[in-house]
Amino acid sequence: MGSSAFTRRGFLAGGAAVTAGGLLAACNEAEPNEPFDENRYLTGQTIPFDGPRQAGVETPHQAHLNLVGFRLNDGLGRADLVRLMRSWTTDARHLCQGTTPPGSLEPEMTDKPARLTVTCGLGARAFEVAGVVDKRPSWLAPLPEFSRDRLDPAWGQADVVLQICGDDPITVSHTMRHLIRTAPTYATTLWVQQGFLSAQGASGESGTPRNLFGQLDGSINPHTADEFDGQVWDGDATAMVVRRIWMNLDTWEELDRGSRENAIGRRLDDGAPLSGGGEFDDVHVSALNSYGLPLVDRTSHVARAMPAPGHPEQRILRRPYNYDLPPDMSAGQLSNSGQIFICFQKDPMTQFVPIQQRLDDRDQLNTWITHIGSGVYWVPPGTRSSDEYWAQQLLSG
Amino acid sequence: MGSSAFTRRGFLAGGAAVTAGGLLAACNEAEPNEPFDENRYLTGQTIPFDGPRQAGVETPHQAHLNLVGFRLNDGLGRADLVRLMRSWTTDARHLCQGTTPPGSLEPEMTDKPARLTVTCGLGARAFEVAGVVDKRPSWLAPLPEFSRDRLDPAWGQADVVLQICGDDPITVSHTMRHLIRTAPTYATTLWVQQGFLSAQGASGESGTPRNLFGQLDGSINPHTADEFDGQVWDGDATAMVVRRIWMNLDTWEELDRGSRENAIGRRLDDGAPLSGGGEFDDVHVSALNSYGLPLVDRTSHVARAMPAPGHPEQRILRRPYNYDLPPDMSAGQLSNSGQIFICFQKDPMTQFVPIQQRLDDRDQLNTWITHIGSGVYWVPPGTRSSDEYWAQQLLSG
Repeated sequence: MGSSAFTRRGFLAGGAAVTAGGLLAACNEAEPNEPFDENRYLTGQTIPFDGPRQAGVETPHQAHLNLVGFRLNDGLGRADLVRLMRSWTTDARHLCQGTTPPGSLEPEMTDKPARLTVTCGLGARAFEVAGVVDKRPSWLAPLPEFSRDRLDPAWGQADVVLQICGDDPITVSHTMRHLIRTAPTYATTLWVQQGFLSAQGASGESGTPRNLFGQLDGSINPHTADEFDGQVWDGDATAMVVRRIWMNLDTWEELDRGSRENAIGRRLDDGAPLSGGGEFDDVHVSALNSYGLPLVDRTSHVARAMPAPGHPEQRILRRPYNYDLPPDMSAGQLSNSGQIFICFQKDPMTQFVPIQQRLDDRDQLNTWITHIGSGVYWVPPGTRSSDEYWAQQLLSG
Repeated sequence: MGSSAFTRRGFLAGGAAVTAGGLLAACNEAEPNEPFDENRYLTGQTIPFDGPRQAGVETPHQAHLNLVGFRLNDGLGRADLVRLMRSWTTDARHLCQGTTPPGSLEPEMTDKPARLTVTCGLGARAFEVAGVVDKRPSWLAPLPEFSRDRLDPAWGQADVVLQICGDDPITVSHTMRHLIRTAPTYATTLWVQQGFLSAQGASGESGTPRNLFGQLDGSINPHTADEFDGQVWDGDATAMVVRRIWMNLDTWEELDRGSRENAIGRRLDDGAPLSGGGEFDDVHVSALNSYGLPLVDRTSHVARAMPAPGHPEQRILRRPYNYDLPPDMSAGQLSNSGQIFICFQKDPMTQFVPIQQRLDDRDQLNTWITHIGSGVYWVPPGTRSSDEYWAQQLLSG
């Protein structure tokens, strides 16, 4: 390729997908309400790593996820965990800023952070390894068994989880590689859950991503600082629940659109509740149509997922990603798809669990979804300075 | 989320990754040489589907690949293959234009084509099924066995291959889903090879993507129309070779950068040959340093891959994607990564095979790579009108 290739094959190659609205707003004086912010579109854009709270929770969703679950090797003690955390934190800090971690010989793989975040969570056993069981949150234990769970141990509880998210798939891949190769003395990879969302998150619709059922997923998430404080943050820490949910596209797609919308309780196109209004308006479960029938089916997903009367605390931050693996031919599958459901809250026992209990009891979507993996993690506060490591307060206390 | 969420969480969410150069050029009058072309950045951007040659060959690489290999079911005849091709072509044409295929109830999953292309190739057995063996190209047969091949039948020859590429991972996923669900009467999915490239293809470097060894991969690709005609197109058809190449990152990363560059024969940072010049300049294998030693090792990858003297036809269009699967814990792997090497040429026997024979004989990279899958496909001409289907000339003759 000569230099003319720069023009011909240049910038477009590889993932540039920005919405009409976004870019036009940036360049078109006719849309003064969307000021041009060049940093929003750069492969080099970074999310601050250090801060009172870890990134990757409130951070607007990126396109790609590698969620990695580790088992801490037998025979480790607190000092080992400190070494692992110190090493991982240093590396993640560099990677998220687009700089080369100590000892890395791959600067070309680390210089496009593209909004990379690495978020660390600890499972219950990490507190035992560190000898700090007395400081373990009471909710950091296996979730209650739900009747419809079909949990596969392959997607089970890990001792440490790293949630790696970013907009550049090479950077996300290399970051996982780098953090795994740092770990083997201390930790063994149990599983990797790889997920994606649409570039359409930037679609000019609402910012809410779609899942593989076509559903806008996460409409009722918190959005104000007060809501985040009230639902998600316990001081500067939070609790992460990971559920792997298989979705049966074959039978789902046998439904007509009306039946799909009825099962969800929202319109497919814009996510508006079937009781009316826009995507972000409240769902009115008692609203009736002209025949006196409920507009929102009482067994629809939204009706069952909404907080119980008198329990406004039953809200969570959903941050799910889609997965799509090659179908299992031996099982006659046409697809092997679903969702890596990640949610954040103060206390899973009073937030996720009652919601999931209602869904498990009765949710029309249960016909087409099955929970096949589960885990709960404590997400420690952020690192307040560049020499602090994840969970330092816990581990150095 | 209220409407304020539009601004707060809006366009960035989900994969917007455009280079500094590209966007600044679009908006910054100080760079007049890069005129603003709004269509280059839109999720809605389409690649024309109909035309004398199929898209997905010369098309600048997109970020995501789902390569699907199908086996034609037993007992089919030409009429069945025609029905399958007609159906797939109609669907692919709609999907690539961002419109909803007949019978699809998922318009929300098909309205962001983001440069989607679907490219169809036929394996040798498809000609038998259709009863047109007499029209089968002589090269459409298993490749010669290379001594270092460790082929896994799981990644073997298919009867039909669909190469689905696009910049929006949801669209790529749904397109695969849609085309697989159309197929079961006629064809069974043998394998799916999922790959990615960096949003960095749009990095402001050269447009050449990196592989997971950090190497700019494809520098010597054709770029002029004459070069494409000379190397790639046989009339309006072409030949596709698919090789799955496992890359041992663990041992590769034990090398210092000098050793890595020596094995490749190019600089890691900018892809320039070690004999000097820029990425797209010729490699001079006889160039010597001041000690009289070769600048480009004779056993380096570039030295072995370049056309043999007097054989300028030994050139191909490389269009590879990276893969990165969860490591196999039971095998003690730290990574399970590599490349879905796809190349296009007039005739694999006189182009790919002699190149690969030289590499198989002696290529420093062989220490770290292993070919584990192989297949050869005839890529029929494009559809010249919106009522033509793939391979119509072959199947209706």
